[in-house]
Amino acid sequence: MRVLGIDPGLRNLGWGAIRVEGSRITHLGNGVCHSEGTDLAQRLLSLHRQLTRVVEAFQPDAAAVEQVFVNRDGVGTLKLGQARGIALLVPAAAGIPVGEYAPNAVKKAVVGVGHAQKQQILHMVKLQLPGAEIAGPDAADALAIAICHSLHLGSAANRAKVKVRA
Amino acid sequence: MRVLGIDPGLRNLGWGAIRVEGSRITHLGNGVCHSEGTDLAQRLLSLHRQLTRVVEAFQPDAAAVEQVFVNRDGVGTLKLGQARGIALLVPAAAGIPVGEYAPNAVKKAVVGVGHAQKQQILHMVKLQLPGAEIAGPDAADALAIAICHSLHLGSAANRAKVKVRA
Repeated sequence: MRVLGIDPGLRNLGWGAIRVEGSRITHLGNGVCHSEGTDLAQRLLSLHRQLTRVVEAFQPDAAAVEQVFVNRDGVGTLKLGQARGIALLVPAAAGIPVGEYAPNAVKKAVVGVGHAQKQQILHMVKLQLPGAEIAGPDAADALAIAICHSLHLGSAANRAKVKVRA
Repeated sequence: MRVLGIDPGLRNLGWGAIRVEGSRITHLGNGVCHSEGTDLAQRLLSLHRQLTRVVEAFQPDAAAVEQVFVNRDGVGTLKLGQARGIALLVPAAAGIPVGEYAPNAVKKAVVGVGHAQKQQILHMVKLQLPGAEIAGPDAADALAIAICHSLHLGSAANRAKVKVRA
């Protein structure tokens, strides 16, 4: 199966696609959708178009979007929320189930600890997807989200197998 | 011209469409898009589909979305932001320019004061759009946003005329 991870952001929205076969994962692609300008509606439309092209190109079977860290910066939270709305909408509109993971859960799944630095995530993503050229930290985060989701889906599938056997 | 106003919300997203001919406004339609369930992506998709049908039905030439009051409730701001992303995206995707107004600006335009109560807005919207059946407070707010935008567009057009004459 193919899994798409999305790290939402209004200026930079990271995405990463992997293939999952049993416990083996391979890199399919990654990148960052940029939106510029001052017109918010146009920026969201630009993200929507770019992310729709990614979904069309990689035809993922599952997607996951990082949950947003809510802080006291209401204006920042609102901006991020608007971009995150697009990140959730695009796979849902393509009929793809969308998982959500807290940043700490992603870090724990990929690095082993919940408080990992960005550099550690990049390092572990590169180790797990050898040969992949990574478009930047937002793309690395998106690949980490995809890896986290693949692990979650894998263990859910294993639990289901155990249930059937029992 | 036809103007669509949108009052964004994740559970209840109000919309209102009016026709503007010179200084005369008439009611075209109003309603509330509801999204239910626990899957956020599906709820956003549901809002997207309903609002897309509204845009297709009324073919507005202009749209406006209420700005969001950012408070200390980060979780609430994030939810609203995600719904607002959809509210901005749908008209933009249909090629319609999207204005944004702060709640106080809408109240001032429709009621005359920036601190008007919901009941006053409903009253003034009913006065300005006689005979319109209003689907609820969110729909009334959306109609108020449309009226505010029509006044703004009208005065911009008048300024342009004065400029041409001068």
